[in-house]
Amino acid sequence: MSVPLRIIQYGIGPIGAGIVRLIAEKAHAEFVGAIDIDPAKAGKDLGQVAGLGRDLGIAVSGDATEVLQIPADVVVHSTGSYLTDVKEQLLNCLRANHNVVSSCEELAYPLRKHPELSKELDEVAREIGVTLHGTGVNPGFVMDKLALTLSSVCQRVERVEVRRIVDAGKRRLPLQKKVGAGMSAEQFAREVEAGRIKHHGLPESCAMIADALGLRAESITEIIEPVMAKTDVQTEFLKVAAGQVAGVRQVCRGTGAGGEETLYLELQMYVGAPDAADTIHITGVPDLTLTIPDGTHGDLATAAAVVNAIPLVVAAPAGLKTVADIPVRFSKNF
Amino acid sequence: MSVPLRIIQYGIGPIGAGIVRLIAEKAHAEFVGAIDIDPAKAGKDLGQVAGLGRDLGIAVSGDATEVLQIPADVVVHSTGSYLTDVKEQLLNCLRANHNVVSSCEELAYPLRKHPELSKELDEVAREIGVTLHGTGVNPGFVMDKLALTLSSVCQRVERVEVRRIVDAGKRRLPLQKKVGAGMSAEQFAREVEAGRIKHHGLPESCAMIADALGLRAESITEIIEPVMAKTDVQTEFLKVAAGQVAGVRQVCRGTGAGGEETLYLELQMYVGAPDAADTIHITGVPDLTLTIPDGTHGDLATAAAVVNAIPLVVAAPAGLKTVADIPVRFSKNF
Repeated sequence: MSVPLRIIQYGIGPIGAGIVRLIAEKAHAEFVGAIDIDPAKAGKDLGQVAGLGRDLGIAVSGDATEVLQIPADVVVHSTGSYLTDVKEQLLNCLRANHNVVSSCEELAYPLRKHPELSKELDEVAREIGVTLHGTGVNPGFVMDKLALTLSSVCQRVERVEVRRIVDAGKRRLPLQKKVGAGMSAEQFAREVEAGRIKHHGLPESCAMIADALGLRAESITEIIEPVMAKTDVQTEFLKVAAGQVAGVRQVCRGTGAGGEETLYLELQMYVGAPDAADTIHITGVPDLTLTIPDGTHGDLATAAAVVNAIPLVVAAPAGLKTVADIPVRFSKNF
Repeated sequence: MSVPLRIIQYGIGPIGAGIVRLIAEKAHAEFVGAIDIDPAKAGKDLGQVAGLGRDLGIAVSGDATEVLQIPADVVVHSTGSYLTDVKEQLLNCLRANHNVVSSCEELAYPLRKHPELSKELDEVAREIGVTLHGTGVNPGFVMDKLALTLSSVCQRVERVEVRRIVDAGKRRLPLQKKVGAGMSAEQFAREVEAGRIKHHGLPESCAMIADALGLRAESITEIIEPVMAKTDVQTEFLKVAAGQVAGVRQVCRGTGAGGEETLYLELQMYVGAPDAADTIHITGVPDLTLTIPDGTHGDLATAAAVVNAIPLVVAAPAGLKTVADIPVRFSKNF
């Protein structure tokens, strides 16, 4: 493409910053606006705020309404995990005539949890003629898109199981803290209760697979529990003693009306995990297992999934589209 | 869907028969016509010819022109591997206003080897308003679509390597013979020379990945050589002595103008293969490896890929569409 894609970045937290740095490498992309509510970022250059180490010539603004007036091909949105929290932001983007690619986990497949809102977003997007899409590594890839792609060579699918085991000890300190490493079981329980320890997206992946493959999943449930350290674990940043919390284990199950389990999604993120890997198992004809040894790197992969989706979403039909609707791949340039 | 998809089956060889048996399981599909040039099949019921063990109420006909007059939603085409051989069949399907899903290997990605013909097929399909699509397990999945999907979580892609190792000893007798098991090296060389030992599709997968990911592959080359048995191998059907040919090894390389190898696709199909698996390795950011232990079952998977594509192709925009364009998945019913 000779005309660069014009991009507005909406949200420059850790994920958004990674997205900005990756977009900055692309030959045919240019930022035309940047939004963040943090007053400490307002007025600063987008490149500096994103940790790029150089200016991008775009000042970060706290005034979304103003920035969204700028003509653009796509808004890259990364401000929150809950769809109800970001609903107005998304609607404002759509109404300003912008396609949107978002890292909002609940947007990856909002049709079950937020059916009314999904309908509204889809209708507004179609009316305006733009596309709205949520993606990332999980939800967006490991537990849904990759499993759906694998299922394309199955004659029958009875059950889908995905296990993602992440060694949090090899990740950045905020992630190690986020999974509860070093806490007591009581502290961990309080953090879960307060909603502060929770990876978002398993029910979304579960619903997406069930609906796309026609698996019975009238009930979708999720549990969050600690993984306790059996021995002392020392990471680059912290120490976890045996008996303390090493991290988190979340299991999401989809079960049919008869109680049969058709979907099992498990995420373990803890320090010292010896067997990090992403594994998908389809029970069907034929049975199929797929493994990504060491797993898909969360931070790199989420930024990649969002950025790679940009030209595909710009080219996609109008409406709310999930990764089940989009043929994903690496996008070298755009 | 309450109205069943109307299907014409074009070609009822081993792959076509597997496709028919799978379609016969679908709740919302009905055959409205069947074509095969073999006079021994003419007039017989499609279900019997396909080995279904029951009638489908459709007589197989050798008169393609007549059958293609029947109103249908899609023609499922499985008659040959070479695009020039099946070109007229495909054009006749399109001109009769039918979408087409085909197992023709060269149709999976014809843009490099047959640029003029690709353009013609695409233009005719768009003009008529129908979709033309080639798929299967390889090409169509292991060496292209799965690799493209994996690349969607990469920030950079430098090189893609795919190895597919099939233990032919666990497959049907025709496949064991087709890979040359039990031949002398001289016999094998003559069969390769005559074009009778050759798996089709590696250059197609190579070109598809290169074009989709922007990898330099000005040159695409392929070698076919025997895998010699190191020890005696006994399968259910035949015996291969040490020193005889156990099967075939094909390697397709894509190299850039500077001679750098950006794509390496290797297919080994031989009796006694101890480490059957499909493996994809992407060199990039991050490096990623994906493995399907024991590999994807060729016969089951090709029929599945074709049948699962049917409703997706019917819903796709008009034109020649490859698996790079279609978001694949298992299709339970249609």
